[in-house]
Amino acid sequence: MEFLVRIEVRLPADVPDRERADLAASEVARGRALQDAGTIVRIWRIPGKVANVAVWKAADATDLHELLTSLPLFPWMDIDVEPLALHPLEGPRSG
Amino acid sequence: MEFLVRIEVRLPADVPDRERADLAASEVARGRALQDAGTIVRIWRIPGKVANVAVWKAADATDLHELLTSLPLFPWMDIDVEPLALHPLEGPRSG
Amino acid sequence: MEFLVRIEVRLPADVPDRERADLAASEVARGRALQDAGTIVRIWRIPGKVANVAVWKAADATDLHELLTSLPLFPWMDIDVEPLALHPLEGPRSG
Amino acid sequence: MEFLVRIEVRLPADVPDRERADLAASEVARGRALQDAGTIVRIWRIPGKVANVAVWKAADATDLHELLTSLPLFPWMDIDVEPLALHPLEGPRSG
Amino acid sequence: MEFLVRIEVRLPADVPDRERADLAASEVARGRALQDAGTIVRIWRIPGKVANVAVWKAADATDLHELLTSLPLFPWMDIDVEPLALHPLEGPRSG
Amino acid sequence: MEFLVRIEVRLPADVPDRERADLAASEVARGRALQDAGTIVRIWRIPGKVANVAVWKAADATDLHELLTSLPLFPWMDIDVEPLALHPLEGPRSG
Amino acid sequence: MEFLVRIEVRLPADVPDRERADLAASEVARGRALQDAGTIVRIWRIPGKVANVAVWKAADATDLHELLTSLPLFPWMDIDVEPLALHPLEGPRSG
Amino acid sequence: MEFLVRIEVRLPADVPDRERADLAASEVARGRALQDAGTIVRIWRIPGKVANVAVWKAADATDLHELLTSLPLFPWMDIDVEPLALHPLEGPRSG
Amino acid sequence: MEFLVRIEVRLPADVPDRERADLAASEVARGRALQDAGTIVRIWRIPGKVANVAVWKAADATDLHELLTSLPLFPWMDIDVEPLALHPLEGPRSG
Amino acid sequence: MEFLVRIEVRLPADVPDRERADLAASEVARGRALQDAGTIVRIWRIPGKVANVAVWKAADATDLHELLTSLPLFPWMDIDVEPLALHPLEGPRSG
Repeated sequence: MEFLVRIEVRLPADVPDRERADLAASEVARGRALQDAGTIVRIWRIPGKVANVAVWKAADATDLHELLTSLPLFPWMDIDVEPLALHPLEGPRSG
Repeated sequence: MEFLVRIEVRLPADVPDRERADLAASEVARGRALQDAGTIVRIWRIPGKVANVAVWKAADATDLHELLTSLPLFPWMDIDVEPLALHPLEGPRSG
Repeated sequence: MEFLVRIEVRLPADVPDRERADLAASEVARGRALQDAGTIVRIWRIPGKVANVAVWKAADATDLHELLTSLPLFPWMDIDVEPLALHPLEGPRSG
Repeated sequence: MEFLVRIEVRLPADVPDRERADLAASEVARGRALQDAGTIVRIWRIPGKVANVAVWKAADATDLHELLTSLPLFPWMDIDVEPLALHPLEGPRSG
Repeated sequence: MEFLVRIEVRLPADVPDRERADLAASEVARGRALQDAGTIVRIWRIPGKVANVAVWKAADATDLHELLTSLPLFPWMDIDVEPLALHPLEGPRSG
Repeated sequence: MEFLVRIEVRLPADVPDRERADLAASEVARGRALQDAGTIVRIWRIPGKVANVAVWKAADATDLHELLTSLPLFPWMDIDVEPLALHPLEGPRSG
Repeated sequence: MEFLVRIEVRLPADVPDRERADLAASEVARGRALQDAGTIVRIWRIPGKVANVAVWKAADATDLHELLTSLPLFPWMDIDVEPLALHPLEGPRSG
Repeated sequence: MEFLVRIEVRLPADVPDRERADLAASEVARGRALQDAGTIVRIWRIPGKVANVAVWKAADATDLHELLTSLPLFPWMDIDVEPLALHPLEGPRSG
Repeated sequence: MEFLVRIEVRLPADVPDRERADLAASEVARGRALQDAGTIVRIWRIPGKVANVAVWKAADATDLHELLTSLPLFPWMDIDVEPLALHPLEGPRSG
Repeated sequence: MEFLVRIEVRLPADVPDRERADLAASEVARGRALQDAGTIVRIWRIPGKVANVAVWKAADATDLHELLTSLPLFPWMDIDVEPLALHPLEGPRSG
C-alpha cells in the first residue's frame, strides 16, 4: 500500500555544526537505503522549506510508522501521513 | 489494517420522505452487513450531528474506498479517513 | 460512557536520557493498568507521530480528566477529548 | 454530566412564513420543557447570530444526542458539543 | 453582563516547584474570591487540559479585563472572551 | 460599552431588483438613524467586499443583539462581534 | 517540472444520469490521454472521497493550467496545485 | 499605493451561455482598460482555478473599492485585499 | 487613509523587570505622541489579552509601516493590518 | 516561470547585535544581486511585519529552491511559494 508522507524538519539552531553534519549524512544514507528497497517510491523537495513530500510503500500503517521512526532526524520531524488508494487510471484497461 | 473513518451525512432537505426512509433502511442493512463481516469494528454517533466515527478494518486504502462507496448514502457523505498503526499497548507483552 | 481521546506527546529535547527512559517506563506501566481496568478500550499509534488515538471508558468527563492527569507524561501532553454516543448499529437489534 | 452545546440555526430563506412561525413556536415550547426539566441549565444568545450557547445536563453523550434530536429545528441546526468536567472551585471546600 | 471566558494556562516547565505551588495557591484563593463575589458565575474544567471555561459577570469589557488581569497566573494564560446576550428562554414568560 | 462588529452581506442572486433596491434603501435609512443616535460610532467599507466593519455603542450584548436584528438586511448577514475594553491611552492622563 | 495536484469533484446532484455518465466517460478518456502523454505521472484515489491526488508534469504553471482546464469535469472541480522541486535523493549519486 | 488583490470567480452553473459570454467579454474589456490606465500593474492566473492574483495601484482603499466594484463580474467574485508597502530593495540606493 | 491594526505583545518572561518597565514607559510615551499627532485615531484593549486593536491614519502602507516600527515594543509585537475604505454612511448626505 | 513568494523572518532575540547587523547587510547585498539578475521581479514589505512578498522568476521549482536557500537569512525564514500562470490580460492582444 502507498502513502503520501509530508515531512518538515525542525532542527533547532543550537545543534552544533558537527552534530548537524553527522545527522544529515546519516539521514541521506538511510534515505538511499529506503529508496533502494523500494520503500520511498518518489520524493520531492518542497520549495522554500526544509521539507519534502514523498510516496512511501509499506505493508500497512504499522510498518510505515516503524520505517519513519528509523529516520535519524525523526525526533525533529513534523510528519503527516495520508493513505492512498489505487486510482482506476492506474488499474487494468479493458479492451 | 484499521482506519478511523469519520462520516457526516448531508442529505438535502428536498429529498422526499419516502426516498429518505428507503435510503435510511438500506444504509442500516448495509451497515449491519459490514459489521457482521468484521469490517466495521466499532462505531459511535457524534452527539448533535448526523455523523458517526468508526473503526474500519480493510486490506488497504483501495479496499476501504470500495467498502465506503458501497454505502447507499455515499453520494451525500463527507468522509475523512485516518490510517491507524498498532500501538505497543495492544502488542504482545513480554514476561 | 466512551470518549475518543487524541494525545500528542511533546517531551522537550533537553530532558536527559535517563529521565526520559524512566518516564517512558512509568507511562507504559500506567497504560497497561488502565487497559487492564477496561479504561483504555482500544488504542492506536498515529503513524509518523509520537501520538496516539484511543477509546477511553469513564464515568463522565470529571472521571476522565482525573484518569488523564494520572498519566506520568501528562505535563507534556496535548490532549483533545471528544464525547461518543451509542450508534444504533451497536444497539439492540429487533426481530 | 454537563455539556457546553453551541447551536446555530440555518433555516433556509424559502421556508414559508407560516411554517417558520410554527417551527419557532414548537422550538420555544420544547426549549421551555427542557429548561423546566433541568436539562438546559443556562442558555445565552450569541449576539449578531441566530445561534445560542448553552449548558446542558444529560446522563451521557447518548442521552444528550437524543435530547438534541428532539428539538423541532434539529434538521436545520449546526451543533457542536464539548464535554465539561467539574472544576475544583465548584467542588467541596475543605476547612 | 455575562461573558464566556476560556482560559488555558501555559506555565513553563522551568518554573520551580515552590513558585508553582505558591502561584497555584494564590490562583485558588483569587478564584474563590471572584466566585464569592458573584463574578465567576459557573466554571468547568476542560477534560485533558490545564484549562477552564467559565461564565463571568462584569459591568463591561473594561471591568472584565481588570478582573482577568487580577489573576495571579494571568501572565501565563491564553484567554478568549465571548460576549453573551440574554436568551429569550431566560427572559420573562408571558401568560 | 463599545463592540467591533464585522458584517458581510450575502443577498442571494435571485432576489428581484426591486426588492433589492427597497432593502438597500431601508438599510441606509436604518444605518443613518443608528449613526445619528450614536449607536454606530464609526463604520468602514472592507475593500473588495459587500461588507463593513464598525464600532457600535450599546448597553451590553443583549442591547447590541436587538440593534443588529433591527437591520433590514439582518436575515442575509454574517455578523461577528468582538467586545472592546477601554485602552489606557484613551483613559485620563495624570499630571 | 512536476506539480502535486489535488482535485475534488463536486458534480451537483441534479445533473441527469445520462449527462453524468457522458462526463465520466470523457473524463476517463482525457485522463488516459494525459497519462499516455506522460503528463499525469502518477495518480491516486483519496479514500472516501470523489477526489484524487496526482503528480503532473508540465512545462510551467501556464502549461499546467491549460492542461487542467482541458478536463471535461473542470467546471465542477476544486483544484489545488503545489510546485515540486527535485529532491537530492532523486539527483545524481556521486561516487 | 499598491495592493495585492486575489479574486476568485464563482459564476453559478445556471447562468445561460449567452449571458456568460457577454459577462466574460465585458470583464476582459474592463480589465484591459484598467491595465492601460496603470491600475492593474501585474496580473497572474492561479493555476487550476478560475482566479487571479494581481497588483493594483490606487489612491487608497476607497479608490480601490470603487475600481473593484466596477468589474462586471464583481457580484460573483470573492475578493481579498492586502496592502503593500515599499520594500527597501525598491527604494533609492545610496552610493 | 485609515487602517485597522491589531497588535499582540509577546514580551518573553525572561525580560528583567527594570527593562520591562522602561519599555512600557517608552511605549506609552510613543503611543501618546502618535495619538496627539492624530495617527492613532481610536484604540481599544482586547479583553483578556496583552493586545489592542486600533484605527491608524497614515498616508499609505509604507508610512504606516514606518510608524509601526517606531513603537519601542515592535520587536515583540505580532501585528495584523487591514485597509479600510470610506463607508457611504460616513460620506456626504445628499438633500 | 514566475512565483509569488512570501517570506517572514524570525530571527531570535538572542542573536547578538553585531551578528544581526552582518546578516542584514549580507541579506541586502544578496537581495540586490537577485534583483539585478532579474530573479526578484518585484518586492514589497508587508506592513507591520518583518516580512515581504515578492515575485520571483526562476527556471522551475528546483531553481527557485536553490535561489531561496542562497539567502543569508534562509535558516530563520518561513517561506511560502505559490506558482503563477500567465493571465490572458498579459498575453498577446489580437486585432
